[in-house]
Amino acid sequence: MRDVAVIGIGMNEQWGELWEKSIRDIFVEAALNAINDAGVDKIDSMYIGCMSGGLFVGQEHLSSIMADYLGYGNIPATRVESACASGGLAFRQAYIEVASGMSDIVLAGGVEKMLDVDGAAATYALSTAADQEYECFHGITFPGLYAMIAKAHMHKYGTTREQLAHVSVKNHKNGSKNHRAQFQFETTLDGVINSVLVADPLTIMDCSPVTDGGAAVILCPLDLAKKKFKNHEIIKVIGTGHATDTIALHDRKDLTWLTAVELSGKKAFEMAEKKPSDINLCEVHDCFSIAEICVTEALGFFEPGKGGPAVESGFTSIGGKIPVNTSGGLKSKGHPVGATGIAQIIEITEQLRGDSGERQVKNAKVGMAQNMGGSGGSSVCHILEVN
Amino acid sequence: MRDVAVIGIGMNEQWGELWEKSIRDIFVEAALNAINDAGVDKIDSMYIGCMSGGLFVGQEHLSSIMADYLGYGNIPATRVESACASGGLAFRQAYIEVASGMSDIVLAGGVEKMLDVDGAAATYALSTAADQEYECFHGITFPGLYAMIAKAHMHKYGTTREQLAHVSVKNHKNGSKNHRAQFQFETTLDGVINSVLVADPLTIMDCSPVTDGGAAVILCPLDLAKKKFKNHEIIKVIGTGHATDTIALHDRKDLTWLTAVELSGKKAFEMAEKKPSDINLCEVHDCFSIAEICVTEALGFFEPGKGGPAVESGFTSIGGKIPVNTSGGLKSKGHPVGATGIAQIIEITEQLRGDSGERQVKNAKVGMAQNMGGSGGSSVCHILEVN
Repeated sequence: MRDVAVIGIGMNEQWGELWEKSIRDIFVEAALNAINDAGVDKIDSMYIGCMSGGLFVGQEHLSSIMADYLGYGNIPATRVESACASGGLAFRQAYIEVASGMSDIVLAGGVEKMLDVDGAAATYALSTAADQEYECFHGITFPGLYAMIAKAHMHKYGTTREQLAHVSVKNHKNGSKNHRAQFQFETTLDGVINSVLVADPLTIMDCSPVTDGGAAVILCPLDLAKKKFKNHEIIKVIGTGHATDTIALHDRKDLTWLTAVELSGKKAFEMAEKKPSDINLCEVHDCFSIAEICVTEALGFFEPGKGGPAVESGFTSIGGKIPVNTSGGLKSKGHPVGATGIAQIIEITEQLRGDSGERQVKNAKVGMAQNMGGSGGSSVCHILEVN
Repeated sequence: MRDVAVIGIGMNEQWGELWEKSIRDIFVEAALNAINDAGVDKIDSMYIGCMSGGLFVGQEHLSSIMADYLGYGNIPATRVESACASGGLAFRQAYIEVASGMSDIVLAGGVEKMLDVDGAAATYALSTAADQEYECFHGITFPGLYAMIAKAHMHKYGTTREQLAHVSVKNHKNGSKNHRAQFQFETTLDGVINSVLVADPLTIMDCSPVTDGGAAVILCPLDLAKKKFKNHEIIKVIGTGHATDTIALHDRKDLTWLTAVELSGKKAFEMAEKKPSDINLCEVHDCFSIAEICVTEALGFFEPGKGGPAVESGFTSIGGKIPVNTSGGLKSKGHPVGATGIAQIIEITEQLRGDSGERQVKNAKVGMAQNMGGSGGSSVCHILEVN
């Protein structure tokens, strides 16, 4: 398999409530930004991560419509879906296609337009990432599932309410320096803990928002990147890992342990020949504050049960041992589900290029992105390195 | 890239109205049949084609749920969607993953459960394969789109009402010999022409049905197949092609010409180093009778405008120059949209193995499958050969 590089990145100017743009506009804007950033004049193929075009905007067949409106010809286009991990999976499929030798210039993008439906319909659409027959039909939705994970983690390890809140405080602090973030304000422990309760112990400030947004990156063989695409520092993809777990929470041996995250991380580390201590920064899937804590443990950055104390101690802040979610994460940057995994790759790429301004992690050479579906039913990890 | 073989195939016992089975049961049944047929004891990765789990059964995140219920471990699983071409695309992604060297034993499956919603909801779900903003919001659904293609074809080339009906008569004749087909009865020209009108000139007997069903195949490197999996004749994948076109019909220069089909076919022929006259049989996407006629022209089996006379003359019947849809096609076998592209590969594989009984095409050595999304907004082609 060939070595692969990321040579272009693009997003919308700001994620949030993009009332004036349809899903095709949102995707095409991000894709054209990535194409311009890379300086390519053609695309051989593309992948689109999208969770539920059907339920959110009544549009499936995203392969055809996005290729059509991008205007780069009758190229092969493939939509992939793995709930909130759809973007990370689109990146992985694009990586495999370039690595295989089948195509040279491949666009990996993601998009979701979530605000065209009301709150109940959005909650329903998102709940289709859980087990409909055994979870949703009985009334549970995602805040409830993650609240059960949080309660179990608190019970087993003594994780505190304040530690959960620290995740949101840190991520809002990072996001306040990200001009593309949906919510560019800082918050406090009190601000998180005393906001509206959603599912005990999680308040609305523990939960990522619904968002309209798109993101895209351009991949090509490393050799071609070195020869032809020198706009930016070349960022090499050195590891990819993908795994699944039981879709239903009640089928897991331990509610606090995300096996798909552990396995996808291990595969990525093994392929990259790296260990957690080699990673300079990591974007993880903080759909809820507790998720970030569980993910940092499952990836091996901290021992089981030590994720809460780690965020409290500032280990995951910019300047800490392993900065996590320097972009603001899903919590502050926003979470248009299909686009999130691609935006994580964008944050890592920008950091490794040294282009992150106030959010810049010093001497960032190796970065990781972890994107998760449902309550951990699927997970995709990637490790990128400055070439 | 490595050579790839198809070593196992599986479907449900019969497609149709599977009231007693949920979408996970339908998929797992087909997948286990494929696993048993191949004689493999593990799966490294899997792909699932599904058009709209969200709108038909309220279940997305099919990667996680299907891997979970298949019970072969925490394997990577990826759902791909390209409307009615989702199955063909799942096969292509599995092919790329095996060819790349990333995985050895990969399952490519497809599934759709379409009968849990009423007719209006099914029509709405299917319409999300068209351009919502420019087509569907103004009231058009798929029978209307294909009726316009039929009218244009009749006007431009003099294609007759009877020639359209011949497609359905032929496919029902083939399907009457397929024990897995949803509708195992023969029909007549009168039976087609005088059935209920759906969208002039198309009657209900020109239209494929809504169906519950699943299908799966197992792929592995050709070398491994030769060494280890000798249950059956080894079938090699010698060509793959994938292309997109404008999603909306009104954006095409010629309503009668399916550019995505032409381009995906050309790529597959080029890779396989074959031409249309080398193909012994072909499964094509006859979602409507006119579609089969247009596809046989776009693939180059017949000159533009000659697809109608060809079916009338029996060229596409079993025993004709190029038997088309020996399985019964979407019309008679049924069309659970995500599964259709995989079932086409199964028919070709079974024919090349010489296992098709009464439907057997004599001396079948090279077969082709063509799977289409929407009104031709996407198309995926594969060519298989007896090794």
